[in-house]
Amino acid sequence: MGSPMAQNLIKAGRDVTVWNRTKSKCEPLISMGAKYKSSPEEVAASCGVTFAMLADPESAMDVACGKYGAAKGMGPGKGYVDVSTVDGETSKLICEHIRATGAHFLEAPVSGSKKPAEDGQLIFLTAGDNVLYETVAPLLDIMGKSRFYLGEVGNGAAMKLVVNMVMGSMMASFSEGLVLSEKVGLDPSVLVEVISQGAISAPMYAMKGPSMVKSLYPTAFPLKHQQKDLRLALGLAESVSQPTPIAAATNELYKVAKSHGLSDQDFSAVIEALKVKLQHQT
Amino acid sequence: MGSPMAQNLIKAGRDVTVWNRTKSKCEPLISMGAKYKSSPEEVAASCGVTFAMLADPESAMDVACGKYGAAKGMGPGKGYVDVSTVDGETSKLICEHIRATGAHFLEAPVSGSKKPAEDGQLIFLTAGDNVLYETVAPLLDIMGKSRFYLGEVGNGAAMKLVVNMVMGSMMASFSEGLVLSEKVGLDPSVLVEVISQGAISAPMYAMKGPSMVKSLYPTAFPLKHQQKDLRLALGLAESVSQPTPIAAATNELYKVAKSHGLSDQDFSAVIEALKVKLQHQT
Amino acid sequence: MGSPMAQNLIKAGRDVTVWNRTKSKCEPLISMGAKYKSSPEEVAASCGVTFAMLADPESAMDVACGKYGAAKGMGPGKGYVDVSTVDGETSKLICEHIRATGAHFLEAPVSGSKKPAEDGQLIFLTAGDNVLYETVAPLLDIMGKSRFYLGEVGNGAAMKLVVNMVMGSMMASFSEGLVLSEKVGLDPSVLVEVISQGAISAPMYAMKGPSMVKSLYPTAFPLKHQQKDLRLALGLAESVSQPTPIAAATNELYKVAKSHGLSDQDFSAVIEALKVKLQHQT
Amino acid sequence: MGSPMAQNLIKAGRDVTVWNRTKSKCEPLISMGAKYKSSPEEVAASCGVTFAMLADPESAMDVACGKYGAAKGMGPGKGYVDVSTVDGETSKLICEHIRATGAHFLEAPVSGSKKPAEDGQLIFLTAGDNVLYETVAPLLDIMGKSRFYLGEVGNGAAMKLVVNMVMGSMMASFSEGLVLSEKVGLDPSVLVEVISQGAISAPMYAMKGPSMVKSLYPTAFPLKHQQKDLRLALGLAESVSQPTPIAAATNELYKVAKSHGLSDQDFSAVIEALKVKLQHQT
Repeated sequence: MGSPMAQNLIKAGRDVTVWNRTKSKCEPLISMGAKYKSSPEEVAASCGVTFAMLADPESAMDVACGKYGAAKGMGPGKGYVDVSTVDGETSKLICEHIRATGAHFLEAPVSGSKKPAEDGQLIFLTAGDNVLYETVAPLLDIMGKSRFYLGEVGNGAAMKLVVNMVMGSMMASFSEGLVLSEKVGLDPSVLVEVISQGAISAPMYAMKGPSMVKSLYPTAFPLKHQQKDLRLALGLAESVSQPTPIAAATNELYKVAKSHGLSDQDFSAVIEALKVKLQHQT
Repeated sequence: MGSPMAQNLIKAGRDVTVWNRTKSKCEPLISMGAKYKSSPEEVAASCGVTFAMLADPESAMDVACGKYGAAKGMGPGKGYVDVSTVDGETSKLICEHIRATGAHFLEAPVSGSKKPAEDGQLIFLTAGDNVLYETVAPLLDIMGKSRFYLGEVGNGAAMKLVVNMVMGSMMASFSEGLVLSEKVGLDPSVLVEVISQGAISAPMYAMKGPSMVKSLYPTAFPLKHQQKDLRLALGLAESVSQPTPIAAATNELYKVAKSHGLSDQDFSAVIEALKVKLQHQT
Repeated sequence: MGSPMAQNLIKAGRDVTVWNRTKSKCEPLISMGAKYKSSPEEVAASCGVTFAMLADPESAMDVACGKYGAAKGMGPGKGYVDVSTVDGETSKLICEHIRATGAHFLEAPVSGSKKPAEDGQLIFLTAGDNVLYETVAPLLDIMGKSRFYLGEVGNGAAMKLVVNMVMGSMMASFSEGLVLSEKVGLDPSVLVEVISQGAISAPMYAMKGPSMVKSLYPTAFPLKHQQKDLRLALGLAESVSQPTPIAAATNELYKVAKSHGLSDQDFSAVIEALKVKLQHQT
Repeated sequence: MGSPMAQNLIKAGRDVTVWNRTKSKCEPLISMGAKYKSSPEEVAASCGVTFAMLADPESAMDVACGKYGAAKGMGPGKGYVDVSTVDGETSKLICEHIRATGAHFLEAPVSGSKKPAEDGQLIFLTAGDNVLYETVAPLLDIMGKSRFYLGEVGNGAAMKLVVNMVMGSMMASFSEGLVLSEKVGLDPSVLVEVISQGAISAPMYAMKGPSMVKSLYPTAFPLKHQQKDLRLALGLAESVSQPTPIAAATNELYKVAKSHGLSDQDFSAVIEALKVKLQHQT
């Protein structure tokens, strides 16, 4: 996802320097006018603001704080924006390393996938140094359609968990509707259409509904990740003693789906957990 | 709601005859060009298709099957379209009376309230005689933005229950998100905004979220009605042995809200059931 | 169950008159010294107190209020005790008929099955005319080990529902323990033993646990009846706006079990609803 | 609890050597004939088998593996039995230290509190070295009424979690029964009695029911500990993808109770979470 984001910055006339573990992946960007440096450290040393988009917490840590990591090239007056989706702990650790150099830090996990990245329609859930947020706002506006500043580092991750908790419950409830409609003799495809017209219509329903009706779950967001986010959200709720009975019931349903071997399918496959069949013999 | 629907038909150049228990309510329509008859029977006798929009099952029964009811004026070649929201049993009873005259029947509960009625943006969930559905389709298109034909009489009511079941769970889950975000130090207003930007955005969240954040619940759909619909939907699920754990947990939450004295407030007040406070002393 | 109850009365030296639709079923009792009459009406006419034990509400109604029913033989100074398990409505209807003759009425559903009936170990949940309760107390003490007077007719049925609601949830929770223990590598038979030693030991666990571990569910109380009682209990809770989230979640689990085709097995078969297996292929 | 356990061993004629951080606590035992040593190390060095009963994981670790800890005095042919209730991780750590000396290790958390300890009625959930289990069996039989050997270290803790999970759900369900019975006009005290007579009677209900009816919750097992055990049990279930919808709903109820400020009361105070009151004003 880093590539389309960089492309949008280049197209907007910004001065961009790139690095990737696999240099060939940078070629398209270089041909569009980007400079290239051979390590995160060098990128950070030569730029005012460094953006990092990594696949997982380990890579995010390594690129920020590793041997030739960005922190080595940071210092007062510079800024580091991590748009990777990492857990709050990792984010706080990276933050510490960056701030220790005198630079500013912003966590900025994005909501949205490849297509919104290409179209400059991402949503940024940022947290950390407000002054850096103000500085990079024009850049975020090139890459995304909206941005939120949420205060302390860790709040970006928390906001994403809450959103994904609601998303998981909505999908489970939608699944109940589809399965119930079919059981009582209605056409679930029509339910998808009816819902799409009214106050509870949501892009997610329109996107996933038609394939769910066909029992197809092409993976956009794996079910096991949705279940993990529910678990983490329940932990978050637990930590502040906030009852969340719907999310708790929802989590159990995703666990049933996992037991059915649906972990790697799309999270919309949770509907299968509601399709109980005659399977017992005595 | 019958008045704005009739106005849209008149504006579209249709020949409209009206009746209301309180004649004065018909004056605006008459001044726009509508004819007036002094009973449902006379309306039915003078028109090809009769629409009925009543507030409750009792009135719907009376206007259709009462002393000077529409059935008295119906006969072969005519049609009766009941756009009231009534239960499946009432709908089937009215259907029997109408069909006994040789006329056709269509149940057509609408999704949408006063504003969509005025703007011709209603959604019709119809069921019954297909030939009548085809006949009135152009009229439904004047009054609404979409229409669904769902088969046997009773299916319109069932579809509405399923939709409202999903709606109730979505609202409960959204409430969990708002309360949890606040408890962990996030601004729930920002959650409303973040959700409004992404795949789970729904008009209902955008409409109700801002007032929910202020603990205000101006009644559009009373909480007790939402809870009643959840109960009926659970009964429907029970009748076909379909597990619906999310709706079951949701129903319990609305019951808690009712116990808090919130029956007559908007169903978004279900959020109050999640705001537990120190209230116990020993 | 009426037979062992009558036997205990005869053995205790009481003067007993019997009737059964199938006279041969009365022979053992007659040989023990019971008198026989050829209709409920005649039994009622010749006895001070008449006990009725029928299999279902229809039979209970017929024997009490039918053509040669007991009501025909009742009158002031007499009493009618219905120990059948019927719903509150049927009980109230029978009560009206009996009281209309000037006689007293007591509903007295029993907790306990055949073995406790033979051993005189039943539990009576009575409601209705207190004066009759006082009169028959010595007889109830012959047939049972305890008796409760619960006030108005209908309260006996309600008490039984509440007890069965708790029973259903306990069985579901016990099932979770058994399945979880096995999943984490513990021997579920040992869990049964451990539980049998401590504060949560219950005769039901000791009775059902060993066969549940072997996936055997010899029917004592059919699962569909347990699920029906949960549904009725949820309805009772609904009627007084009392949240019961555990019973609601429990009911969903029994519904899953019903969907697995386990309706006619013992209610302990609810454990199967928790044994999810890899069953999905794509 | 260590004191009454040691007393039972002394009364049975066993040769007992004791140590406690506060020596005065050992006086009664010494006056009964126990020897005294001035550190865990010395106790272990002079005895064949050493029992440890500590209040928390930290103390358990310190007494076993600290500066003058028991491990220092252990060696081949000796055994260490930890009857404290600690988590699986701590237990495994202590086990490693003990085994490193060539000695055997047994984790043996007990079910039962002070009174059963005095009466020699404890239940031991043991796991670890089977040979040591066989050796100490006669001693466990002096202190307890039953003992279970569960295999690998960690299984004792897991078994206790499963039992406490079922216990938590049973208490929540019992609470629903009490509250519902009262709401429909039955006397909850009578429900306690009825339950005590039948198949679902449990010592816990008989013990706690009467005070619950009076809204009194004298702390035997704090509510916050019950909720913590539910959370850990849900984590255990999560780790093996085992759905446990009843325990999940139960946990939410205990969380509500915690929010009501009931953390330090007895876990039977969970019933308060079901007593919703008119508390909302608009």
